[in-house]
Amino acid sequence: MAGDGSDQRALQYEQTLMYGRYTQELGVYAKEEAARLRESGQRRSISERSRTLDLLEYDKGRCAKCRRSGYPYVLEAPAQDFISVCTVRCQKFLISRVGEDWIFLILLGLVMALVSWVVDFCIAICLQAQKWMYGGLDSNVFLQYLAWVTYPVVLITFSAGFTQILAPQAVGSGIPEMKTILRGVVLKEYLTFKTFVAKVIGLTCALGSGMPLGKEGPFVHIASLCAALLSKFMSLFGGIYENESRNIEMLAAACAVGVGCCFAAPIGGVLFSIEVTSTFFAVRNYWRGFFAATFSAFIFRVLAVWNRDEETITALFKTRFRLDFPFDLQELPAFAVIGIASGFGGALFVYLNRLIVQFIRKQKTINKFLMKKRLLYPALVTLLISTLTFPPGFGQFMAGKLTQKESLVTLLDNRTWAKQGIAEEFDYIGNSQAWKHPQVNVFVTLVLFIVMRFWMSALATTIPVPCGAFMPVFVIGAAFGRLVGESMAAWFPDGIHSDGSIYPIVPGGYAVVGAAALSGAVTHTVSTAVIVFELTGQISHILPVMIAVILANAVAQSLQPSLYDSIIRIKKLPYLPELGWGHHEKYNIRVEDIMVRDVRYITLNCCYRDLHNILMSIHLKTLALVESAESMILLGSIERAQLQSLLSQQLSRSRRMEYIRERAATEKKHLSVVSNNDSDDGRQRASQEVRFQISTEESTFSPTRPASQKPLKPALKRSSVVERPTELPTSPHDHSGIALKSLFCSSPDAEALEDDGDVEDDMTLREITEWEERQLDEQVNFSTCKIDPAPFQLVERTSLHKTHTIFSLLGLDHAYVTSIGRLIGVVSLKELRKAIEGSVTVKGVKVRPPLASFRDSGTSSSENEATELHKLWDRHRSVSLPGDQVTSESDEKSQ
Amino acid sequence: MAGDGSDQRALQYEQTLMYGRYTQELGVYAKEEAARLRESGQRRSISERSRTLDLLEYDKGRCAKCRRSGYPYVLEAPAQDFISVCTVRCQKFLISRVGEDWIFLILLGLVMALVSWVVDFCIAICLQAQKWMYGGLDSNVFLQYLAWVTYPVVLITFSAGFTQILAPQAVGSGIPEMKTILRGVVLKEYLTFKTFVAKVIGLTCALGSGMPLGKEGPFVHIASLCAALLSKFMSLFGGIYENESRNIEMLAAACAVGVGCCFAAPIGGVLFSIEVTSTFFAVRNYWRGFFAATFSAFIFRVLAVWNRDEETITALFKTRFRLDFPFDLQELPAFAVIGIASGFGGALFVYLNRLIVQFIRKQKTINKFLMKKRLLYPALVTLLISTLTFPPGFGQFMAGKLTQKESLVTLLDNRTWAKQGIAEEFDYIGNSQAWKHPQVNVFVTLVLFIVMRFWMSALATTIPVPCGAFMPVFVIGAAFGRLVGESMAAWFPDGIHSDGSIYPIVPGGYAVVGAAALSGAVTHTVSTAVIVFELTGQISHILPVMIAVILANAVAQSLQPSLYDSIIRIKKLPYLPELGWGHHEKYNIRVEDIMVRDVRYITLNCCYRDLHNILMSIHLKTLALVESAESMILLGSIERAQLQSLLSQQLSRSRRMEYIRERAATEKKHLSVVSNNDSDDGRQRASQEVRFQISTEESTFSPTRPASQKPLKPALKRSSVVERPTELPTSPHDHSGIALKSLFCSSPDAEALEDDGDVEDDMTLREITEWEERQLDEQVNFSTCKIDPAPFQLVERTSLHKTHTIFSLLGLDHAYVTSIGRLIGVVSLKELRKAIEGSVTVKGVKVRPPLASFRDSGTSSSENEATELHKLWDRHRSVSLPGDQVTSESDEKSQ
Repeated sequence: MAGDGSDQRALQYEQTLMYGRYTQELGVYAKEEAARLRESGQRRSISERSRTLDLLEYDKGRCAKCRRSGYPYVLEAPAQDFISVCTVRCQKFLISRVGEDWIFLILLGLVMALVSWVVDFCIAICLQAQKWMYGGLDSNVFLQYLAWVTYPVVLITFSAGFTQILAPQAVGSGIPEMKTILRGVVLKEYLTFKTFVAKVIGLTCALGSGMPLGKEGPFVHIASLCAALLSKFMSLFGGIYENESRNIEMLAAACAVGVGCCFAAPIGGVLFSIEVTSTFFAVRNYWRGFFAATFSAFIFRVLAVWNRDEETITALFKTRFRLDFPFDLQELPAFAVIGIASGFGGALFVYLNRLIVQFIRKQKTINKFLMKKRLLYPALVTLLISTLTFPPGFGQFMAGKLTQKESLVTLLDNRTWAKQGIAEEFDYIGNSQAWKHPQVNVFVTLVLFIVMRFWMSALATTIPVPCGAFMPVFVIGAAFGRLVGESMAAWFPDGIHSDGSIYPIVPGGYAVVGAAALSGAVTHTVSTAVIVFELTGQISHILPVMIAVILANAVAQSLQPSLYDSIIRIKKLPYLPELGWGHHEKYNIRVEDIMVRDVRYITLNCCYRDLHNILMSIHLKTLALVESAESMILLGSIERAQLQSLLSQQLSRSRRMEYIRERAATEKKHLSVVSNNDSDDGRQRASQEVRFQISTEESTFSPTRPASQKPLKPALKRSSVVERPTELPTSPHDHSGIALKSLFCSSPDAEALEDDGDVEDDMTLREITEWEERQLDEQVNFSTCKIDPAPFQLVERTSLHKTHTIFSLLGLDHAYVTSIGRLIGVVSLKELRKAIEGSVTVKGVKVRPPLASFRDSGTSSSENEATELHKLWDRHRSVSLPGDQVTSESDEKSQ
Repeated sequence: MAGDGSDQRALQYEQTLMYGRYTQELGVYAKEEAARLRESGQRRSISERSRTLDLLEYDKGRCAKCRRSGYPYVLEAPAQDFISVCTVRCQKFLISRVGEDWIFLILLGLVMALVSWVVDFCIAICLQAQKWMYGGLDSNVFLQYLAWVTYPVVLITFSAGFTQILAPQAVGSGIPEMKTILRGVVLKEYLTFKTFVAKVIGLTCALGSGMPLGKEGPFVHIASLCAALLSKFMSLFGGIYENESRNIEMLAAACAVGVGCCFAAPIGGVLFSIEVTSTFFAVRNYWRGFFAATFSAFIFRVLAVWNRDEETITALFKTRFRLDFPFDLQELPAFAVIGIASGFGGALFVYLNRLIVQFIRKQKTINKFLMKKRLLYPALVTLLISTLTFPPGFGQFMAGKLTQKESLVTLLDNRTWAKQGIAEEFDYIGNSQAWKHPQVNVFVTLVLFIVMRFWMSALATTIPVPCGAFMPVFVIGAAFGRLVGESMAAWFPDGIHSDGSIYPIVPGGYAVVGAAALSGAVTHTVSTAVIVFELTGQISHILPVMIAVILANAVAQSLQPSLYDSIIRIKKLPYLPELGWGHHEKYNIRVEDIMVRDVRYITLNCCYRDLHNILMSIHLKTLALVESAESMILLGSIERAQLQSLLSQQLSRSRRMEYIRERAATEKKHLSVVSNNDSDDGRQRASQEVRFQISTEESTFSPTRPASQKPLKPALKRSSVVERPTELPTSPHDHSGIALKSLFCSSPDAEALEDDGDVEDDMTLREITEWEERQLDEQVNFSTCKIDPAPFQLVERTSLHKTHTIFSLLGLDHAYVTSIGRLIGVVSLKELRKAIEGSVTVKGVKVRPPLASFRDSGTSSSENEATELHKLWDRHRSVSLPGDQVTSESDEKSQ
């Protein structure tokens, strides 16, 4: 019985979360359990238990309801509870006065700065330990090698295992997921405490291993986790922390904090997080990001000062380029070359990264083996990379002994390496020493470093540990810039400037430009420029950096999606591709060209059988409700789950019991004429009429407006799982009927008969079937059903560009196409995605391979042909409306 | 007759542009005239004349139509035209290939850089001329004074007069207008060539006068003008330049270019323009701004290098602060003080500026006098300011002889003034000399400078010339920062740092912080921080600047709207206030609390009389179309103008003529039975049925889908004025009937009877009235009417916060509130604005004075009371649905 119920629920949620993968079963299950307990009168015990995080939100909703409806809760509860409620209210008042957004943001910034600092500190200790081990064993090369290799393998394996066990969601960067969440998709278990712990510890170990991994992406995720947990914590006191819009705003701010406290770059952090996570950015949210990120960066740097690492607050990777003449105008072509080359390099990196993932996924035998021994892959990759960087081995030719941070510091050094030559003194803190090899030119070292690091980073970021790719890419970019800079310095030993004083070329400036350009190309952002200024503390190279970043973006965006979009596709998260650089042909495609014309709908006067059939035949998340099949006037949309519960209610055992009772009463009536069946009659009547019930978004008062002519009353826009009306039977107690069983594809097993009253369930299976058939012919009573009364509507003529805008603005996943009230089609994210990715050529309609989705088609077609073809295409495709499962499969195939 | 027609049109447009003030009569009139000419067959002459800018867009629309519908235009035209069309098509192909966005952006950047440089150059010459005049007359103080005063008075007066005559729209900053335009409101004549010329020349003269005025705001406007004109120019070749969404995107980029090339600050420019003009920013538009602004800033600085002003590209106001230890941690409180004080100062500045405007507006006598002699006010203000800054007079105590630029350079100087004392040598290029007075302390000079400049700037920005307030405020902020810095330097002569080396305090750093904080407070932006980094070329003070800017914003935003929002209110542009810092109470207000319940609607089966009555009684821009008064199912919305034209068509003279003809025919029928009245019959039948006609957004092909059961066919979302179907009689040729006359409130004067056919208008006035009464009783035929089939719908439970988001996201000005298809209310920008500005207190509902609209109410109410009160309030107000005229009046009163 219970198994049956949970099956049903599982199916339901799989379809609720349109694109699968992440179900939120656990949380919801806990809430339902809580609801059941509460129903059975265990209110007091709940009031204690509800302080746990999972049930918190539910309890808040309930408390709010009680308070408004005349404190029945308080009146029922003893004095102790009353006092606690008073305390809570006082606290709430305090918080609502003081607890403005900025308190939250300061707390968030503070926590994140501490986390960032502690993580950095632990990483530094880990790296130092490795160095110490390696240094201590300098008598024996083999022992040295063992130490050098074992240490990272152990750390990475631990990190992978720990993450795998505690919270597999913590794997990877987190930015793609945050982008999806900020689009409005619920990936709830991404923001749990478990994930937080797994991410922080996993990240520390992963970075402590010395692998070429970054902390930026994970920090965005960690900050979001912090915000979500803090929000939950704060909602213990105040009410405003429950609002969904507010949570989204706070998550957006948290992303900024993540980047900001990672690099001590508040401005760059805000901009980067906007570029990476948002499609449309609410400017009113701007100050939140700045405020929190600044505070966080400030605390992060102050901790360093207090720790006596620094004398005062300065940049993380401070440079000391000359200010008067940072670069010559004639050097600009070299900067532009860096930009363009970085663009190609960035695209290659994204491609390589995806290629590795897909290669490992496709090789069935490898995959099978690796799936069994999940920790083998991380260990192998780590072994390979650390072997190659072993300083006495190949590592000597690629500055292998330097950590990522040390490499970056040396690369941004403001002195020239090449000019002094190899033989010359070269004594900058000893670290630059690593770049100098007795036999090999510094150029060779740099080239080797770039090439080796490039594929190593692409490989390392596929390890299933919490890690980002920003920092490795940043370092590679800096090395590339340095290479160009050193070449320029070798070519023009006295600088380019012709008249007057000599200004030698500064290769460090080139390194800055290269770092910004390559990381910009990989992430498709312009704000890396701002990040480098904040990281280096110098803005003198603003124009070269901007030019290089923009060129790199132009090249990279025309070749490949960004790294994060690439991961989104690999992970099959619900997404909407950007319109890209040259999207003017998108203005000419219209909704009517891409919409699905064969819309499935339910009518207001349909019977339960129609409902049953429609639920059997299709698997859409929501269904359109129209007035009648003739008028096709769109009234709203209903979620599938709602319809299922309607149906299960109609065929529920309790209703059958009632029928039996009624039948018994009728039989009795033959004996005594006086009997009260008013209530049943009333019930019957109600189910015949079309009547809508008030259901509220939050548990506020019910409006007391007089009923108007037609008994249609307000329903909510966004149904909340929390506020299920109590008479709605969705808990596993209500057993579905036989006909319903067929809907949920499970065989009709014998029901556990519970005697719950005066009558006995003495109906035979045939009688039950007959009864159900009769029930199915009744007209649907939508009164207990939540209807979204204003689903988003478009017009046929809306352009693809505008549709894209609206979808990304409002985070829709489908919209109905109407024509003067009449429903004529539906557009979902899927159609839109296809329309954006599949370009229209003159020859015909062609869906481009996903890898080339950002490439522009060589020819543009005349509108007429294109649209006609589109229509044909659509008609062909809409013959069988593909369900969501089909989508994900076809997606899988195309990748 | 013609006067009558234009009256009608004027009324129509006054109601179309909901908030009045700026009517687009001229442009539309020109187009209508062109349409009339074209109708009468003068195609060739048009094809030459249409190359003028005003008619260009119209002609493009027509050309596009011709091209698609089988080249009837080309076939009719001679060979020469054919060749020119071919050339145009070739050009179009070239442009559509090459003419991606980036070409446009490069052109825009280039043009703006040149404009900026030329304007700067001219301003420099003007200022130098003044200095030269003043210096040359050093023998006679009176002559010196005359020269010092006359020069700016003449320039400002010229600027004001020139702008007044050529294009009054060029007055002021332009940022408020751009904000409005980017919200989707059409202020077309803001983007004409005339305005461009007026703005550039007016600005040059105004700034050349040496008044405390800025060029930033005007440059945003100029860049937008450039973009609009360039767009028009480019649309000569390509088709994509006609798209509305694209134009908005380009305007947003242009705003970034404006700031970017003004300060050579690409990043700050982009961010500032986003903060100042957008509510929701499309991240896909981000690269456009960066690209264009970077290119523009680059060219702008390269011009300086080519002109031998600079050796290489560096910042505009380069500073030379030390990098190693820019500031001590213990100095942070001082920076915070600067931030908070700047916040108050910024709010005061906005308040003062508005106060001056309102004072001058309210003083009827002054106002009347000034209205007559429009140039007197500028002249008087200039006289006052220049008198006070006269260097040998009061100006000697406030560095009056320095220009704005020179002041800023000296204020940002990295040496300390106070430490050396007044007596010490003080010889920095001679300009810092101006701050030193033999008798007076440098602190006194600074304080005087700040105080005097403060009110002078607030006053000067009210002069009706093209001018901005950013730069004056920036300088005042720098002076304030310098003051604090010098005080700190005097207080801690050896710096604060306790251990080790001595790091003296850098007052220049304080000046940077002050400048960013004050300008941030006045404009409510955080990105001024980025602008100062780019302006000074140093980012070392990032944390102090960020902290001060955020604090300043926090204070200023809680006291006053931003300067631009303040101007928007003064100018009564349609706007939607921001939600501000602490807006959590907005989550609890719902649409049902603020909506107007008494919605006026028209039903699908109404007769013309209902239409007439409804148009007589209310003055809304759009009306809801519902299925019937019983069902209230919302089908769409119709513009008032459409209904008016429906009505005028029904009562038109041509229909009456037809009636007369018909009557005559019927009379004839008595004589001969054979007559063909089929067509009339068909017409009659058609007008009885409810039938919708296909009308297309752009003049594309008509879809050939088979007609479905109900003969409802697609109509367009946004009606375009250009594409009026030819059978729709809105040109002044169609004379309105008598009943219609009463609608347009003009007395029914005798119509100029034109004999247009075989019959004579022999009906008496009584007959006409009778005929019209009959006509009014007919059912409305909506076939020629453009219906917006998907007006935006909200649900009662939508929160104010969400409503605000949706309104600003989609640029709506009204939305219908529906409940499962049923129309139950309407919310317009007005209600929303009131709800945001008027706070809800426990005592009752109170609309706060506009000046305090951003202040938070001290107490928050319980939701129940508030909502009930809100309802009462709404019911009270909705008794008479106030028209738009009423709105603007009440706005006027409340200010």
